Amino acid sequence: MGEPRETPTTSGQDAQEHREQGLGQPGHERITIRGTHPGDRYIRVVRSTDLPPRPAEHRYVVAEPTEPRTTLGRYLRQLRRMLIGRPLRTAEEAHERLTKVKALAILSSDAISSTAYATEEIMLILVLAGSVAYNYLIPIGLAIAALLVIVALSYRQTIFAYPMGGGSYIVTKDNLGTTPSLIAGTSLLIDYTLTVAVSISSGVAAITSAIPELIPFRVELAVAAIVLLVIGNLRGIRESGSIFAIPTYLFIGGMMLLLGLGAGAAWFGLFTPHPVSHPIPPAQQGLSLFLILRAFASGCTALTGVEAISDGVPAFQPPEARNAARTLVWMTVILGTIFLGITFLAYHFHLTPTEEETILSQLARTIVGDSPLYYYIQATTAGILLLAANTSFADFPRLASFMARDRYLPTQFRFRGDRLAFSTGIIALGLAAGTLVILFGASVNALIPLYAVGVFSAFTLSQASMTRRWWRREPPSRHRTIGMLINGTGAVTTGIVTLIIIVTKFLAGAWVILVVQPLLIWQLRKIHRHYERVSAELSIPPGTPAPERPGWPGPLTVVVPIAGYNRAALQAIEFAREIAADIRVVHVTDDPAEAEQLRRQWRDARLELPLVIIESPYRELIGPLVSYIEQVHTEKGDVVMVVVPEFVPAHLHDLPLHTQTAWRLRLALWTHPGIIVTSVPYHVSP
Amino acid sequence: MGEPRETPTTSGQDAQEHREQGLGQPGHERITIRGTHPGDRYIRVVRSTDLPPRPAEHRYVVAEPTEPRTTLGRYLRQLRRMLIGRPLRTAEEAHERLTKVKALAILSSDAISSTAYATEEIMLILVLAGSVAYNYLIPIGLAIAALLVIVALSYRQTIFAYPMGGGSYIVTKDNLGTTPSLIAGTSLLIDYTLTVAVSISSGVAAITSAIPELIPFRVELAVAAIVLLVIGNLRGIRESGSIFAIPTYLFIGGMMLLLGLGAGAAWFGLFTPHPVSHPIPPAQQGLSLFLILRAFASGCTALTGVEAISDGVPAFQPPEARNAARTLVWMTVILGTIFLGITFLAYHFHLTPTEEETILSQLARTIVGDSPLYYYIQATTAGILLLAANTSFADFPRLASFMARDRYLPTQFRFRGDRLAFSTGIIALGLAAGTLVILFGASVNALIPLYAVGVFSAFTLSQASMTRRWWRREPPSRHRTIGMLINGTGAVTTGIVTLIIIVTKFLAGAWVILVVQPLLIWQLRKIHRHYERVSAELSIPPGTPAPERPGWPGPLTVVVPIAGYNRAALQAIEFAREIAADIRVVHVTDDPAEAEQLRRQWRDARLELPLVIIESPYRELIGPLVSYIEQVHTEKGDVVMVVVPEFVPAHLHDLPLHTQTAWRLRLALWTHPGIIVTSVPYHVSP
Repeated sequence: MGEPRETPTTSGQDAQEHREQGLGQPGHERITIRGTHPGDRYIRVVRSTDLPPRPAEHRYVVAEPTEPRTTLGRYLRQLRRMLIGRPLRTAEEAHERLTKVKALAILSSDAISSTAYATEEIMLILVLAGSVAYNYLIPIGLAIAALLVIVALSYRQTIFAYPMGGGSYIVTKDNLGTTPSLIAGTSLLIDYTLTVAVSISSGVAAITSAIPELIPFRVELAVAAIVLLVIGNLRGIRESGSIFAIPTYLFIGGMMLLLGLGAGAAWFGLFTPHPVSHPIPPAQQGLSLFLILRAFASGCTALTGVEAISDGVPAFQPPEARNAARTLVWMTVILGTIFLGITFLAYHFHLTPTEEETILSQLARTIVGDSPLYYYIQATTAGILLLAANTSFADFPRLASFMARDRYLPTQFRFRGDRLAFSTGIIALGLAAGTLVILFGASVNALIPLYAVGVFSAFTLSQASMTRRWWRREPPSRHRTIGMLINGTGAVTTGIVTLIIIVTKFLAGAWVILVVQPLLIWQLRKIHRHYERVSAELSIPPGTPAPERPGWPGPLTVVVPIAGYNRAALQAIEFAREIAADIRVVHVTDDPAEAEQLRRQWRDARLELPLVIIESPYRELIGPLVSYIEQVHTEKGDVVMVVVPEFVPAHLHDLPLHTQTAWRLRLALWTHPGIIVTSVPYHVSP
Repeated sequence: MGEPRETPTTSGQDAQEHREQGLGQPGHERITIRGTHPGDRYIRVVRSTDLPPRPAEHRYVVAEPTEPRTTLGRYLRQLRRMLIGRPLRTAEEAHERLTKVKALAILSSDAISSTAYATEEIMLILVLAGSVAYNYLIPIGLAIAALLVIVALSYRQTIFAYPMGGGSYIVTKDNLGTTPSLIAGTSLLIDYTLTVAVSISSGVAAITSAIPELIPFRVELAVAAIVLLVIGNLRGIRESGSIFAIPTYLFIGGMMLLLGLGAGAAWFGLFTPHPVSHPIPPAQQGLSLFLILRAFASGCTALTGVEAISDGVPAFQPPEARNAARTLVWMTVILGTIFLGITFLAYHFHLTPTEEETILSQLARTIVGDSPLYYYIQATTAGILLLAANTSFADFPRLASFMARDRYLPTQFRFRGDRLAFSTGIIALGLAAGTLVILFGASVNALIPLYAVGVFSAFTLSQASMTRRWWRREPPSRHRTIGMLINGTGAVTTGIVTLIIIVTKFLAGAWVILVVQPLLIWQLRKIHRHYERVSAELSIPPGTPAPERPGWPGPLTVVVPIAGYNRAALQAIEFAREIAADIRVVHVTDDPAEAEQLRRQWRDARLELPLVIIESPYRELIGPLVSYIEQVHTEKGDVVMVVVPEFVPAHLHDLPLHTQTAWRLRLALWTHPGIIVTSVPYHVSP
């Protein structure tokens, strides 16, 4: 690679920055396209190859990152770099495998963090029927633990069946077809959004339980956390970073210690607890099967996130499936232990859910008082919940990119930003979760009824798909029978739970999902149909002979709208003459006297081109121009080209001083087939 | 005029609507450009003349109003028509002359309505020094009345000197030059804005005094009133409408009755008043000359609007000047009487200004109790204040259009909307006044310090200009001496008052004006310089010979960026071939495999055009394209044309599904001299 033939005189340093290595394949010409001289409106080209310019057939060029040229642009870039970091090359993508220890921390944070609110959600329903209903807390807790085992066993099968990653969307698409896969996909998208909203709200509740002064700022804190997650993920946080393993283990460690101490105080009388007394409010309704099922449905949120490990099998070190399966077992044991521990102790200490303090916070205060350990528990709870929300910021954009690849979401979800993150998905998730948090006042209780529906319908579809998969495996074997039995049980159980959730939570908010999800699916199908149709219309079947200069019937008709007889107009007319013979210059006026003056100037200029003057008694400009151009189009047929003199001021701040007719006309003519708009810019010297 | 040759098959009625008479001058061809078939994407042309199409040299066409073609467009038009009314032709402008009775009502509403707050503003300052300061109320009132007489006499001269309308801006420009005229112009623009903010706030205070329940909604009420005024004025309210005379006379009648009754109760013991007792708060500061001058400065707001009659002389019936002068005298007498009456009675009844109730409301309640007359006074006060704000909505846009014609404001201020009103000025005034009302919480007291500065500096400049004008009149005469004396006294007095206002109100808010106004003038000068420079650069001096096909060095180089080998790309390439020989097709990719596939398709298509592939390792699209186009531009010199295949979906709602590369590229290349962008739209069938 030779020395640059031309270098910018003053910004060698700037150009140096661009001379970075390209990525072209061997044999490809490598040209550094740009060296910018800051503050200069013209571009100097730095050519880092000595090859003479040749009539390039199939040239292959590797581009350098673009440098902004305006001061504003540079400030924006600086801000962007500060927030997001320097751009990464596609080839810089990291592919790191997770050890079991790390994987447990990272992929289980969502599931394990559910223990921060699941017990409380059961109690919140039971308390409606007064203290007598509390006796059902333990049975409900055990039922949920049993459900956890069934679901975990089911997903263990998925791990072995889909070692390349078995998200519900992909598994369902494979086994049940399009409609179920769209149900699973939208369930997951909704689920991820609610995971963010619920986890962040619950994390904020952990903080405000410890520092009640912050209670009035719940929504603000939650929104700030979401903004941080969005920025962090646009930076391309590595999910696999060791730092993400820390909060999970800190939480697990703290909880084990707390539950151990709690058991010591409760059942072995090792020390005296510090009872927290909130009176149980009077019963608002009688104890009924419906209420118990509703409490059970609320508690099922403990299971959210269980599927994460089976989705992430390819991230494990080999043997991937076996490592993932073992991690799943560990996750189940830890989750079950913490959930049951909290539930048993909350029952033992007669805790009552309140608006101001979480059950977990009450439990910690009861066991360890206002000690540092209490604050440790609250801090690590907030930490693991933030991490759980963060995993959704990896999962949602990835799923959205899969769905966009299948043409069910706008293509923008496939693009990766400066840092290789799916920016559109991250921002969309941030906006959706932020809206939920604001609408529901960052209240976990208000969000929970919406949450569980999506999670459990995705469970059901995933398990049903697995059952179908076993069914299809022809030679009947013991292995097949057991597999079908496990997944079948899983599918039936989670299916029943889904129904219970829908029925018992319907009025509390589940109806929202039942309205939103079908609308979403309908929308996805519409998007799909649009892309399919467009693609069919645009595509050229292979083997189609190349057109030999057909299509456009010459000679071209050109319309040049002018605002007056001036240099900008003249420039556009000259350009029009260069490319066509049939030229019509047109001027719209609301003042006949002014039009007469133009007519006289026109006559004196002897341009020998027809001038059409349109009087606009309603002082419209664009409307009559469009009408005239349409008329020409109808008369001449096929293609009319509009050449607009466009006035470009040297400074952005002068823009409001001009009326931007060119842009307005372009917008107005955009939807007109057969009309091509060209603007000939006239640049005023700065 | 012959029958239409072609009529739309289904929408005869729609077309009928367009066949309305045009306005072309005799001898001009008259073509109804458009008949639209609703719901049809293609246009049918209705030709209402039988003239054969001819190679039209200097055709003159009269356009019909544009009809929206999309459903959304039709709804928007309907909404617009509902709010603003049907469009008016330029020729429909009404030129109506005012009788003295009407003119008094319409042109004096601003001045007379000032009595609603002027006395209160004096008392608000005096009350700071406790009850002892109240003794200065009467002397201050009399001083202001004297000032009123001086100013009125001064303006009487202006009426005879400028029978064509002597706004301060025009008078000052004529006599003192550019800088003073800009000071006067900006003073007036600020003054009109504050008139709206103060009058509306005061009108709302009149309403909330009578209905205290509305006090919490002061700002909302004020903003709603401004919105109504904006819409009303966009409709083109005729200032001259008789309906506008009513509130002024209702107010004057009510006030005369109230003051008569008040005098009867106070000094003749005709009946017992209903004293309103608000305790005078303890003195916050000592009585000083500064405080008295400050109170005087506050009271000077009574004079705001006195100049309106001299600005509006041409609207009077002939003899214009004499009628205007008489009306001015009447206005002065009425304004002086009401102002002094309120001031004397407020002193007599020992009223105390409060936050909740205006002095005028207290006075009315004292005299007539909670009777219907009290509510009548409050309602008519609100009415005349609304009318006063409305006059600013006529004056501000008109002044702004003068200043835009002189190239000191953006040209948009010159355009008249559908209803012949200066829409930009109306909307700008509404936004500015609305912002003030919101910022200052619709509080008259908070706004007053900003108000008086502008009014009195405009007074001073106007009177100084008149003095200068007398001075220039060469032959010394008695008439000249008297005139100079009157205007000189006016100028000196108002000049002193301006200084008093600036000094005494500086900290309370006058400083804002002293900061904003110079900035505004600096901005206006910048705008002026820009327009002057652009105009000089664009203009072609008469007598310049017409260029004979010069300028553009052929052959043209065309760059066609394509997203893939598809029909949209092919169409753009065919178009490029039609107009140029040197064509470079370019494709940006972030996936070398995809690029390789395109290369193979390209080879198989045998288009015999070079294809340049740019690999973009940072996944940028626009940046590398722009760089490449710039490189071609540098190599080939002068002009490069970029022909972009543009994908136009049939429905607006499909827009977000496509990435709009054409628009983004156009925006990016907009500021590049020598690069012309054309888009070749590919319309997907709906």
